[in-house]
Amino acid sequence: MAKTAITPTREENFSEWYQRVIQAADLAENAPTRGCMTIKPYGYAIWELIQAQFDKEIKKRGVQNAYFPAMIPLSFFQKEADHVDGFAKESAVVTHYRLKTTDGKIHVDPEAELTEPYVLRPTSETMIGDAMSRWVQSYRDLPMKLNQWANVFRWEMRTRMFLRTSEFLWQEGHCAFATPQDAHDNAMEFLNLYHDFGRDVLAVASFIGEKTPEERFPGADHTYGFETMAQDGKALQSGTSHDLGQHFSKTFNITFQNVEGKEENAYTTSWGFSTRLMGALIVSHSDDDGLILPPMVAPHQVVILPFLRGDDRKEEIENACRELNNQLIDLGIRSLVDDSDDRSSDKMWKWIKKGAPIRVEIGARELDAGTLSYVRRDLGKVSKEDLSVVDFVAKVQSVLDQMQKDIYAKHVQFTQDHTVKVSTLAEAEAKLKDGFAGFIQLPVTETEGDAFEKLKEEYKVSRRCMPMDAEGDVIIAKSY
Amino acid sequence: MAKTAITPTREENFSEWYQRVIQAADLAENAPTRGCMTIKPYGYAIWELIQAQFDKEIKKRGVQNAYFPAMIPLSFFQKEADHVDGFAKESAVVTHYRLKTTDGKIHVDPEAELTEPYVLRPTSETMIGDAMSRWVQSYRDLPMKLNQWANVFRWEMRTRMFLRTSEFLWQEGHCAFATPQDAHDNAMEFLNLYHDFGRDVLAVASFIGEKTPEERFPGADHTYGFETMAQDGKALQSGTSHDLGQHFSKTFNITFQNVEGKEENAYTTSWGFSTRLMGALIVSHSDDDGLILPPMVAPHQVVILPFLRGDDRKEEIENACRELNNQLIDLGIRSLVDDSDDRSSDKMWKWIKKGAPIRVEIGARELDAGTLSYVRRDLGKVSKEDLSVVDFVAKVQSVLDQMQKDIYAKHVQFTQDHTVKVSTLAEAEAKLKDGFAGFIQLPVTETEGDAFEKLKEEYKVSRRCMPMDAEGDVIIAKSY
Repeated sequence: MAKTAITPTREENFSEWYQRVIQAADLAENAPTRGCMTIKPYGYAIWELIQAQFDKEIKKRGVQNAYFPAMIPLSFFQKEADHVDGFAKESAVVTHYRLKTTDGKIHVDPEAELTEPYVLRPTSETMIGDAMSRWVQSYRDLPMKLNQWANVFRWEMRTRMFLRTSEFLWQEGHCAFATPQDAHDNAMEFLNLYHDFGRDVLAVASFIGEKTPEERFPGADHTYGFETMAQDGKALQSGTSHDLGQHFSKTFNITFQNVEGKEENAYTTSWGFSTRLMGALIVSHSDDDGLILPPMVAPHQVVILPFLRGDDRKEEIENACRELNNQLIDLGIRSLVDDSDDRSSDKMWKWIKKGAPIRVEIGARELDAGTLSYVRRDLGKVSKEDLSVVDFVAKVQSVLDQMQKDIYAKHVQFTQDHTVKVSTLAEAEAKLKDGFAGFIQLPVTETEGDAFEKLKEEYKVSRRCMPMDAEGDVIIAKSY
Repeated sequence: MAKTAITPTREENFSEWYQRVIQAADLAENAPTRGCMTIKPYGYAIWELIQAQFDKEIKKRGVQNAYFPAMIPLSFFQKEADHVDGFAKESAVVTHYRLKTTDGKIHVDPEAELTEPYVLRPTSETMIGDAMSRWVQSYRDLPMKLNQWANVFRWEMRTRMFLRTSEFLWQEGHCAFATPQDAHDNAMEFLNLYHDFGRDVLAVASFIGEKTPEERFPGADHTYGFETMAQDGKALQSGTSHDLGQHFSKTFNITFQNVEGKEENAYTTSWGFSTRLMGALIVSHSDDDGLILPPMVAPHQVVILPFLRGDDRKEEIENACRELNNQLIDLGIRSLVDDSDDRSSDKMWKWIKKGAPIRVEIGARELDAGTLSYVRRDLGKVSKEDLSVVDFVAKVQSVLDQMQKDIYAKHVQFTQDHTVKVSTLAEAEAKLKDGFAGFIQLPVTETEGDAFEKLKEEYKVSRRCMPMDAEGDVIIAKSY
């Protein structure tokens, strides 16, 4: 058996390792549609846990879900020239509405051409802006806080599962307010929520802060980013929040009668994260044996493996496993018995690669002693602990909680260890020349001249965000 | 004030009434995209409740969710000629992948034409069949039970919100098995689940049974329907379950090594329901005052209305409302205080039209007496009951349970009252001639000749299904 379950290792080839982790954990695969992925059941189960927990948070904050058409009339983009130029050009376009069979061969019916083509939503500011123009009439209708869970489409040239695909899943919040302050506060509220959700649920450390003008979303007054660090030191934009001012509200005529009866344009925001977060999870926590899942997003927090030698006491051991499983489920823990026919060591490696937080083994010896042995996935191969079943049941939730915190602390530490603060662009350049892989924090004024443009070109770095807690600074890094 | 909140009434113009109920309850609206609807927050909240409850049921039955691309290569349809001819022709087709601006005008870039067009999924048998051909290798991989919650696209000519739109939301289950019996059992299991889910959650009566060959899903060996009755007597196909035999498994090469090591084709099924169920809810239960929601799918099961005379004791009354609200929420009831500025009677009518199961009023008189008055939406305007707050809290769950049962019983009764059993096609014709609006049950052999074809034409009826509990019979009706 290889020393690591995943080859190549992170060290050897990070990008190839990433693909292999996805494959080994059975999260997703490249689809027959160009640039698209199929999210397999285990990967989708993680996404469902992310969705459910985030959905609860936005509902607490007064956001309501709705659903808007995926096909957006081309004319909506005409209204929004900046938006298109900066953003929406690489889009999938529906031009026909019928297929035809001629001589047994199927093709697009040339007679069924649309008079106005439809663009598959790359994002829904235009569609939702149009709806808000009808839904918002008076100050009493504000604030209006909407969110949509949907698939979106961007014709990406170089794709990579979860990180960049032509179709992906996301949430897009779209809100309208009576004052610029309310809109600003909302953009910040959800930026902060991304940060906290990253910390508490995904166990990822992040920098949050405003983007510099050239990284701004086309049509936004201010764009704020939620940036996380991969284990190769690259930045991953894991979510964004936009204060759109009156830009879309003027284009789409979102007006309201204020308290004095005067017509005003509303102020809007939008904020979103996507299945890219699945990529963030992988590149933040996984190791050379595969995926490591924080318990909060693990489909199976505890996996119980019957340790069998042939058929010897099989039924007895499996019954003990099932009994423990039921106890854990009653405690609200997502627990699973893997009683498949595979060999014990194959099962163990399977769940290592799939990143199950806790693996429990019960064999004949444990059965007789009323004990079990368990392993925390994040502590590697040497962490096996034996204890009584009763004690395990009593402490399992606290083990999971501790594990969640430890994975987060590890990522915080990693991010700190790979972030340097410098005072000048020259120092930053020296770092990059030296092969530094990580985030470089420096005064934003240092990055405002042509010298930075050269640096960008040469080292493929960009300005990621101006961290909220470090006024006047910006972070530069290579990115996904 | 009009005698009814909705005009026209069901009697006057059912189809117009239907649109007005949707509008008055603020469920959805026609979108700027041809034939598409926007599902507004209140409508979407109902769909989320349907989703969550059904999702739990399918997971109990070992089904796993996954996500497949929405854009299907045209060549997949080429493999599946029957499927296309019978079904997939009226489809939205993506032919280009870029927009371009020329002289400030945006248009589709003619140089960005796809070499192979993509069809927006009208259903995913082909896409999932292709995936299963890779995922299924051995009998150990079977059964494979997948489901997808997704948007689907069908270029419908005559559209109506929820009932028939060019884009809608649905669940599509796709399963593969080692034997024809397993596939058959699965198709029946989920057909039965639709029936039971209809009964227990949506409170709709239904007929379930096999479809006649001409109503079969193209590519299926057997199609089973879940048919409900609208209050105008028309049938609504509310879900279908297909035993696909080896049709798709042969086309897409889904093979497995059986226990003896021999290569075999798998047997597949698919089953689905859509946002059409929202339409079924409306046409089954609503009255001339608007929507009536069964408690199981009501976003707010109890709505508490402070009954105010100006500002007199406003705070005190609103506090009492909030206190009750918190008690109900603690009991797991979806409760809401409507403390908006609207007049009390406007609020009352708002929640009547939105179909909230129970409305509670607390005013000064109730405050002093420690009582409240409540109204069950389904019992109409005369059902107001006064009782102590304590007694209400103690019995509210049982009131909701009873209401759920009563709404179902009413629909069962309606369906029975509008179903007749006849022995010959001539008798059926006489009924139709007589203006009978409902389901006509007769021996299926009576509908197998040319005479029935004439009847179909003349009265716009079709064979809906052969009810499981009435062997040899078929139901004919007009349908949505």
